[in-house]
Amino acid sequence: MSHNSFGHLFRVTTFGESHGIALGAIVDGCPPGIALSEADIQGFLDKRKPGQSRFTTQRREADDVKILSGVFTDAEGRQVTTGTPIALMIENTDQRSKDYGEIANKYRPGHADYVYEAKYGIRDYRGGGRSSARETAARVAAGAVARKVIPNVSIRGALVQIGPHKIDRARFDWAEVERNPLFCPDAVMAAQWADYLDGVRKAGSSIGAVVEVVAEGAPAGWGAPLYGKLDADLAAAMMSINAVKGVEIGDGFASAELTGEENADEMRAGPTFLSNHAGGVLGGISTGQPIVARFAVKPTSSILTPRRTIDRAGNETEIVTKGRHDPCVGIRAVPVGEAMMACVLADHFLRHRGQCG
Amino acid sequence: MSHNSFGHLFRVTTFGESHGIALGAIVDGCPPGIALSEADIQGFLDKRKPGQSRFTTQRREADDVKILSGVFTDAEGRQVTTGTPIALMIENTDQRSKDYGEIANKYRPGHADYVYEAKYGIRDYRGGGRSSARETAARVAAGAVARKVIPNVSIRGALVQIGPHKIDRARFDWAEVERNPLFCPDAVMAAQWADYLDGVRKAGSSIGAVVEVVAEGAPAGWGAPLYGKLDADLAAAMMSINAVKGVEIGDGFASAELTGEENADEMRAGPTFLSNHAGGVLGGISTGQPIVARFAVKPTSSILTPRRTIDRAGNETEIVTKGRHDPCVGIRAVPVGEAMMACVLADHFLRHRGQCG
Amino acid sequence: MSHNSFGHLFRVTTFGESHGIALGAIVDGCPPGIALSEADIQGFLDKRKPGQSRFTTQRREADDVKILSGVFTDAEGRQVTTGTPIALMIENTDQRSKDYGEIANKYRPGHADYVYEAKYGIRDYRGGGRSSARETAARVAAGAVARKVIPNVSIRGALVQIGPHKIDRARFDWAEVERNPLFCPDAVMAAQWADYLDGVRKAGSSIGAVVEVVAEGAPAGWGAPLYGKLDADLAAAMMSINAVKGVEIGDGFASAELTGEENADEMRAGPTFLSNHAGGVLGGISTGQPIVARFAVKPTSSILTPRRTIDRAGNETEIVTKGRHDPCVGIRAVPVGEAMMACVLADHFLRHRGQCG
Amino acid sequence: MSHNSFGHLFRVTTFGESHGIALGAIVDGCPPGIALSEADIQGFLDKRKPGQSRFTTQRREADDVKILSGVFTDAEGRQVTTGTPIALMIENTDQRSKDYGEIANKYRPGHADYVYEAKYGIRDYRGGGRSSARETAARVAAGAVARKVIPNVSIRGALVQIGPHKIDRARFDWAEVERNPLFCPDAVMAAQWADYLDGVRKAGSSIGAVVEVVAEGAPAGWGAPLYGKLDADLAAAMMSINAVKGVEIGDGFASAELTGEENADEMRAGPTFLSNHAGGVLGGISTGQPIVARFAVKPTSSILTPRRTIDRAGNETEIVTKGRHDPCVGIRAVPVGEAMMACVLADHFLRHRGQCG
Repeated sequence: MSHNSFGHLFRVTTFGESHGIALGAIVDGCPPGIALSEADIQGFLDKRKPGQSRFTTQRREADDVKILSGVFTDAEGRQVTTGTPIALMIENTDQRSKDYGEIANKYRPGHADYVYEAKYGIRDYRGGGRSSARETAARVAAGAVARKVIPNVSIRGALVQIGPHKIDRARFDWAEVERNPLFCPDAVMAAQWADYLDGVRKAGSSIGAVVEVVAEGAPAGWGAPLYGKLDADLAAAMMSINAVKGVEIGDGFASAELTGEENADEMRAGPTFLSNHAGGVLGGISTGQPIVARFAVKPTSSILTPRRTIDRAGNETEIVTKGRHDPCVGIRAVPVGEAMMACVLADHFLRHRGQCG
Repeated sequence: MSHNSFGHLFRVTTFGESHGIALGAIVDGCPPGIALSEADIQGFLDKRKPGQSRFTTQRREADDVKILSGVFTDAEGRQVTTGTPIALMIENTDQRSKDYGEIANKYRPGHADYVYEAKYGIRDYRGGGRSSARETAARVAAGAVARKVIPNVSIRGALVQIGPHKIDRARFDWAEVERNPLFCPDAVMAAQWADYLDGVRKAGSSIGAVVEVVAEGAPAGWGAPLYGKLDADLAAAMMSINAVKGVEIGDGFASAELTGEENADEMRAGPTFLSNHAGGVLGGISTGQPIVARFAVKPTSSILTPRRTIDRAGNETEIVTKGRHDPCVGIRAVPVGEAMMACVLADHFLRHRGQCG
Repeated sequence: MSHNSFGHLFRVTTFGESHGIALGAIVDGCPPGIALSEADIQGFLDKRKPGQSRFTTQRREADDVKILSGVFTDAEGRQVTTGTPIALMIENTDQRSKDYGEIANKYRPGHADYVYEAKYGIRDYRGGGRSSARETAARVAAGAVARKVIPNVSIRGALVQIGPHKIDRARFDWAEVERNPLFCPDAVMAAQWADYLDGVRKAGSSIGAVVEVVAEGAPAGWGAPLYGKLDADLAAAMMSINAVKGVEIGDGFASAELTGEENADEMRAGPTFLSNHAGGVLGGISTGQPIVARFAVKPTSSILTPRRTIDRAGNETEIVTKGRHDPCVGIRAVPVGEAMMACVLADHFLRHRGQCG
Repeated sequence: MSHNSFGHLFRVTTFGESHGIALGAIVDGCPPGIALSEADIQGFLDKRKPGQSRFTTQRREADDVKILSGVFTDAEGRQVTTGTPIALMIENTDQRSKDYGEIANKYRPGHADYVYEAKYGIRDYRGGGRSSARETAARVAAGAVARKVIPNVSIRGALVQIGPHKIDRARFDWAEVERNPLFCPDAVMAAQWADYLDGVRKAGSSIGAVVEVVAEGAPAGWGAPLYGKLDADLAAAMMSINAVKGVEIGDGFASAELTGEENADEMRAGPTFLSNHAGGVLGGISTGQPIVARFAVKPTSSILTPRRTIDRAGNETEIVTKGRHDPCVGIRAVPVGEAMMACVLADHFLRHRGQCG
């Protein structure tokens, strides 16, 4: 990962600001001959799209993706990838004209305002500019292409914690994730969360969350020692998502409390494993078991309660962030986490095939 | 990070197996004119070296580093970097001759044995080969060079949890870290851990841990959106260390339970922050506050209790790992975590200077 | 350089096919605070644009560039770069609907048709797809941004040979380059070339050429040993342009005939050099003298004379390439060569500043 | 290519100075299971080794290569690659103690002395330091590994021009290359060159040369548009060799004088080509024909004739370079050019397999 690109053989570069003309991604290194249309991508974008429930920002964006290059309709009429870079563009349509005076001149605590300005001497303050979660639309689009590269791998995400409220693992049901707007795999908790979030939203506050992404079907052998470990790439990928403050694989931080006996995933013929504390990755290489990543999303810094801050001139002041915001940005991070998992796995699939045939 | 290299302008490539002839690192992109001798590096290696207390493996390695290139004694007699690649080599001296029959033919649960063989069709089973924690000596050597690149940044690490036993934050004292062999910043807990680890060691078992690394003195502005975020690079760097299963920045996973009001690090003139939930990184860019990273280290898989496994032919069997092992590999991960922090920060310092002057 | 990206700190990724919806580039790593508007880029694109004289393809493209991201209008009303990725898009407007039957099924000798299909199993045959010289518009746009990064460096190109006809060095005049449509620095030769090319064009043939690009104003010290040499990057950059078959720096191939005495660029106080056989680069690092690169452009493979070839089924056949083509693609390669020089120098300026301050 | 590394999947990083302790290379990404011993590499190093005839420097170096990592003796007793980084080290043995006073304080015209100091503020002047041709031993060692990755590709080099004396293509005979110390494929010219070089050597002068490298057996499809073109990578690779000032593929600069009719390599069933003006590369992708690269090597700057120069303080002075030097460094560049061709092809073989299966 460097600057605005990630991946090695399946390489994604994104561009765009929240309130610019357009945002998008170039997917470079995609294998040729894969059927790919805008519809294949649109479904995933729609899942991430804001304004679909009262729990996400009310900003309205069509988020229509356009494929600018890299696909071709062959003699049989199938639209397939050609092996050349696939440029994906999403035009910004809801750039509500407004007065950015307050945000333009003050730094929102917990937001990237201050550091962008400290680094660059300038920042595009309209809607957060490059640091806006809007950029994740480009990731989701790229992830949709990545899934096509590894069609036998199923990648699914869910929200497993909002604030102090964790799901009950015994009630975990992937089918349930599709049934509620919170991507919650626990029907009971989904209802509780809805109530809880209504309170957060009405208070003009926000709350953190934890997302879990699971990939099933990847064979043993993907990944590479030591600085190209599958889990190192996953950690970077997840940590690059807005507002993410922690990443873990398998038992993650809980493994600090385990003994060697407890942590060992014993093996039987097959080969098969009797447990998956490792989360599908050992020594940076996939084991063939489900690959399990979790990441923590902090609460959005855009809240209605006044916070102490400074302005660009260094004077002490206060700020309140009005406007359309997510009470829990972790919700919309679910499809984004899936997309990042897909991109990392597609990259490692190609890299493994390159080195090991 | 790709394959066995990491960093972009300050770029480190490591090589070597546990029981090969030598291991080492090439540090490429180091600025010229920096005073650097083997002694500057040796001190950090000694801190990581095994066999210094009863709590680490009894393997005896001199871990003497040799600088093969990239430094030159100038007219004033100072040995300084020249800007060309700095090759660092550590010869393996304690390659105890032994029968690897059991490890050669069976996969240790929780170890990389199985996946290396699944990926490559072959593995160097002597002491874990490339997947051995011994490789971290190369990281520590590279980290010593990195510290010289950013002399105004202080980088310190500590062990903050072993098994279920966490330090008391109220007793946190960096000076204490130097006084006990467990890198524990809490004198009371250091004594308790010693007893606890004696039990673990005598039982032939192992236990997980959590390491915290803090960098002070880095200015605001290091890092880069969005796939070159400072915290994304830190996450990858820490996750690339052997046995690490989770990484967090600042409040990390705890931020999932925070409200926007609680999480916001308010600002006052200075500029200064009234808290550091962010752990010194916002939007992937340093804030000027201490940069705080924590990572979870799983228990080593080398234990005396028999575990069920399979052999190379796929037959079901059991395995016991004899030999000299760390009851808690998290201990020696402390200087390794510091080294990775140093390398990532040196890289981002140079990258920032490159783009922004 | 890898896949469709080049550069290390100033990094350009291009996308797009000849007859797709759009083509463009993402410029990543550009320093912030640089004034940049579409007009700054358009002038260079116009210079490269086809259809401006009878000596280039009659395809009509507006080649209007749109900046999609990475610039912002600051408080003083200046539109400046923000340090985030600059996406540049050029829509394809003259995608003349036609029957591609012949090109779709046969391979043009000397063209990339056969190898794209051998590699990918599919090719976008419309106008050459990704292998079309049309992609160079994206390079020229990126080059315009690069020039802004190194405003004190002047970069100029000229055509110095068409077929067997070389310019007279004694008549070399940069001002003349602006006065004729062939970018010829020799007024006498410009007239001769015009007559010569009329003959080539009327015969439905094509001819090769040599382009020279000179950068003045770069200080000593840009470049990096050994695989990031300034001239190695220039060689790759020029060779990546369509139809280029050779690159040389300074005396280039003529230096094979020189003795050490002749080749040595002696030095006097200043520091100054008494000659520039080296072409401004020694040991991969700039000397402070003009940087001189030349590259050979083969004749386009699109000619009216029938050539023997095979079809996709492997049957032997003949092909004639009708349509709008350049009798000498070397002409329009002049602004492209300038753009590549600009991008390489901007990248090495940033890299040097990163490592050496 | 960046800094001291090149290649993408088959990635080589070199280190070392002329008179340091050792030089070497790390080869990262090599496929596993390939038989590899030091003897496999030594043969190629011996070919490059100085002091083998009166036409090369009389410096005596054993150039014994040691494999430090990345190979393992498997159960069948075969020493094979494991897929982990292969570290190769060559110790410097002939670091003749001498007074470097003159070279230390003056810049040799045509040498990298001045620019290294301009860039870094310091230079290792002992034998040229990092800019010494001695570094090419590391390339040759890496190239020997690369050849093993693509065993069906034959890679051979020859010297085709020394000063104004070119070989007669009609007498080109690969077998002859092995019979004379000048790697000359033309027996008649070999004898003439020997006489000519005796004169150059006795005059304390030096002379330039042209090397040709040919790879046979690579299938169609290796390479990648547009900035990862096979020929762009070859151009960078060859230009990165010391003293190289020009690179061409196939007809190279001569193609500037060709018409489209002459240049087109017509095709017949097979598929087969009736000529190879393209030098085996079209659109950046291999055609299946022999891949032909040529590069020009300037005369070494180390000559006995006094040249005007300046000292470090900027004072005007003269310099004469005594010591053991090559009258024609182009000779020993032959095995180096072969090695670079091998590395580039191995990399593109793996990259192609990664993307296209």
